[in-house]
Amino acid sequence: MINHPTRRSILSMIGAAAGSSAMYAAMTSLGHAAESPYNGPIKLDGDPKGAKVLILGAGLAGMTAALELRAAGYEVEILEYREKAGGRCWTLHSGDSYTELGGATQKVDFAEGNYFNPGPWRIPHHHHALLDYCRRLGVTLEPFIQGNQNAYLHSSNAFDGKPMRFREINADYRGGISDLLAKATNAGALDEAVSPADREALMASLKYYGVLDDEFNYRKGDHLSAYRGWAKWPGGGADARPEPSEPIDFATVLQSKLWSKLLEDQVTDHQETMFQPVGGMDRIAAAFEKQVGDLIKYNCKVTQIRQNDGGVTVTYVGSDGTSEPRTASGDWCVCTIPFSILSQIEADLSSEMQSVVDNMPYAEGTKFGLEFKRRFWEQDEHIYGGITYTDLPITLISYPSTGYQSDGPAVLLGGYPWGAISNQFTAMSPQDRIKWALEYGSHIHPQYMDEFKTGVSVVWHRVPWTLGCYGLWRDREANYDQATKIDGRILMAGEHVSYLPAWQEGAITSALDAISRLHDRVING
Amino acid sequence: MINHPTRRSILSMIGAAAGSSAMYAAMTSLGHAAESPYNGPIKLDGDPKGAKVLILGAGLAGMTAALELRAAGYEVEILEYREKAGGRCWTLHSGDSYTELGGATQKVDFAEGNYFNPGPWRIPHHHHALLDYCRRLGVTLEPFIQGNQNAYLHSSNAFDGKPMRFREINADYRGGISDLLAKATNAGALDEAVSPADREALMASLKYYGVLDDEFNYRKGDHLSAYRGWAKWPGGGADARPEPSEPIDFATVLQSKLWSKLLEDQVTDHQETMFQPVGGMDRIAAAFEKQVGDLIKYNCKVTQIRQNDGGVTVTYVGSDGTSEPRTASGDWCVCTIPFSILSQIEADLSSEMQSVVDNMPYAEGTKFGLEFKRRFWEQDEHIYGGITYTDLPITLISYPSTGYQSDGPAVLLGGYPWGAISNQFTAMSPQDRIKWALEYGSHIHPQYMDEFKTGVSVVWHRVPWTLGCYGLWRDREANYDQATKIDGRILMAGEHVSYLPAWQEGAITSALDAISRLHDRVING
Repeated sequence: MINHPTRRSILSMIGAAAGSSAMYAAMTSLGHAAESPYNGPIKLDGDPKGAKVLILGAGLAGMTAALELRAAGYEVEILEYREKAGGRCWTLHSGDSYTELGGATQKVDFAEGNYFNPGPWRIPHHHHALLDYCRRLGVTLEPFIQGNQNAYLHSSNAFDGKPMRFREINADYRGGISDLLAKATNAGALDEAVSPADREALMASLKYYGVLDDEFNYRKGDHLSAYRGWAKWPGGGADARPEPSEPIDFATVLQSKLWSKLLEDQVTDHQETMFQPVGGMDRIAAAFEKQVGDLIKYNCKVTQIRQNDGGVTVTYVGSDGTSEPRTASGDWCVCTIPFSILSQIEADLSSEMQSVVDNMPYAEGTKFGLEFKRRFWEQDEHIYGGITYTDLPITLISYPSTGYQSDGPAVLLGGYPWGAISNQFTAMSPQDRIKWALEYGSHIHPQYMDEFKTGVSVVWHRVPWTLGCYGLWRDREANYDQATKIDGRILMAGEHVSYLPAWQEGAITSALDAISRLHDRVING
Repeated sequence: MINHPTRRSILSMIGAAAGSSAMYAAMTSLGHAAESPYNGPIKLDGDPKGAKVLILGAGLAGMTAALELRAAGYEVEILEYREKAGGRCWTLHSGDSYTELGGATQKVDFAEGNYFNPGPWRIPHHHHALLDYCRRLGVTLEPFIQGNQNAYLHSSNAFDGKPMRFREINADYRGGISDLLAKATNAGALDEAVSPADREALMASLKYYGVLDDEFNYRKGDHLSAYRGWAKWPGGGADARPEPSEPIDFATVLQSKLWSKLLEDQVTDHQETMFQPVGGMDRIAAAFEKQVGDLIKYNCKVTQIRQNDGGVTVTYVGSDGTSEPRTASGDWCVCTIPFSILSQIEADLSSEMQSVVDNMPYAEGTKFGLEFKRRFWEQDEHIYGGITYTDLPITLISYPSTGYQSDGPAVLLGGYPWGAISNQFTAMSPQDRIKWALEYGSHIHPQYMDEFKTGVSVVWHRVPWTLGCYGLWRDREANYDQATKIDGRILMAGEHVSYLPAWQEGAITSALDAISRLHDRVING
């Protein structure tokens, strides 16, 4: 009765003979499983014979280096500017306060347990190193909702400024291009490009993909409404028949430009499944700090980095600048200080390395954490997590991916402008930033003004320990290799020394690479 | 410095004058927020003066009716066939046992805390009534991952049976049709269908949507790899530059037919965000049962339903058929017994209603809960929740949307064949079903055989209390209205009396509709 598989694949034969490990190895060699430059916990074999590594910065790069170097037998010391570890892996919790460059202090007045991640806020499924450290260090993860088809696409210049549901634009755009391509194919326009057999498969696929009717038109009906949503949604009992919705005219969809956000959750960095730590991104920093906190000297502002053939000596003062200069030294130094800061520190670097350090601008970025009295986006609009995109300067609104359906106040990300548009917020007082975030957001959620409770903002060019959001390469092809060289006895690490700028995965993998090269030098000379 | 919004929308003006409630009402009247036939908790005003309603079945429909009718002042009694409430809202937990029609008993040998939902397993974001009951009754929800771009699309007849990542087929199909439509547009094939201004927007949109190069070709490169995945993924430190992957030839994509699963997470019922209760779907049943458990008589097998102008009298025996017949009665009866069962019970129904009851086949459906020693899909293949689709008879594999990265055994849904393909499993012994689920699944995950621990299967035509998965309408247009009529003193409710067949939302909203009509009759005659 069962259709027995008519042939066994090579894989099944390998599997029968050799068990699943061999089979998985075979799959990998067929190119189907290989994916990540991270292949599990780093192995640093060989005795470093008490060599000491001085690490500058206790962000994820610095703490990764410290954790693994100590495990490999090194003596390790970390100098950290702040009073706690984590760097940009940072969460503002209820009761925290934060003073930005310029002196403005914000008290975080959120309800107990509420929080806001000013820095990284989501973890892609393919950031294998970060995920593996979360696993090893016991950080509990929950899904971060990136793509929510019931959230909005909004343009001030389309649909009279009325936000549209993502699913409406998504289905209507997909239907519109499928309809056009079916017409062109039927008209013979693709006879040269597509063989007859492929043409048949193409037409069948367009009918499915565009949700076209039997005449290959994208046209109002039940089938289509099952994708774009209904005018009246189906229910139970009497009078429960759904009513189909009216698709938007394709020319209107095109001219709205709202299609320009349809791939936001289709890029690998944003593809479902994504994660966030339960309780805030800084749970990752805290888990690392639990391991290496005893190696960290806090509140140390590095003022000078000297090196010679024998090692590295760093001078530092208290972060408030008042204490007497002290020194720390090591045989080697892993420097994770952002180049935006490092370029202002007197350091014995080669002229080539100094030039790379001096020529890296840092990205602008602003984030707003807004707390409202209730989850009106869930209660009134049925938006559970995910992101609304807008052409207003706030660029997006991201709804919390946790505590769904709970009562009481909740915090959403009220905007994440980056690049040039962020500068207007950099120049404002914290109060004005919140005022404008609310003003813009209320064009999408009119409940904003009535429901607002409190807010906090972080403009990254005013963050004292980074002076920017993440490193930008002016010419990565020309300069990247230099940044990854061992410069005398100093190695650079951090997101800025990676092809994953701004991502925690970049910081961690750059640190793993740096200490692996350092260890090789120590062991093999 | 800020671009002040140059004009205020109607909504903002309303908002300034009247606060957010008025504004939200205005939005709704503009058609932008209206969405659900469920508009919050039901209100049953007026005194039923002690009228008694007898409810048959303690699934979600029956318990919803009981909860709301008691709150409105009715006397309520529920007869339930099983030893517990919930009906198809059902979870098999470690330690449970289940005896199917035919007598085979399966012991659920999962590790402590592991479970499997044989019935409903996910909650769409627009199932407002169900979500609202979860909120009111304190059922904690977590995201159910439906669409996972790192899961597989698999066909025995394509790519030598090798599973492909969803993201690869997704990006390459989207790129392929965008490339073709751009070519057709450039060749003038759409000059009549599309105005010059729209043509420009169309080309810009295709370049974005298809990730085309400057010549509007879908061609190997970094930009494209950011969507379909990389040959070598980006990392940090030296030698971290990513390498672009090779897109699949479009004709191969078309002939693979794997595009036929690309919209699985695009239909409203499966669109992100979806939910599941923490701990198993039966947490919903348990939450209802906590409210109305005192009204339920368990282990009652209804044998006869009599009615006259004065009320309804039901005869029942013990579920094992051994006890003496007893009776229960009410002024009215809400009958949630599936028509597959009701058609076998002697009942005083109008001939029109009896005909509807007798002519509803029930859908086939089989589910496999397979427990493995470890989460190899996460550890080896980086698949966190979501669904792999296959043309093998198991049809899909759904990975657990909970406990990510945890050690120890975990349970996945090893298949969900429904319709005709399910029948082959109905005929097998539970042992053989698991054997075949493993055999088929191992074509996708060669780790299956080595890592398998234990499994359980439910074929819905062998479930004694439903004899099928959900009600199918032979001719809904002709017969639906009859099913929702008050038949003397009996009303039907359940997923089968809804436009949301198989869904819990259909059961709940049909019950709400039934009691609302019943109450109107009681109050207004």
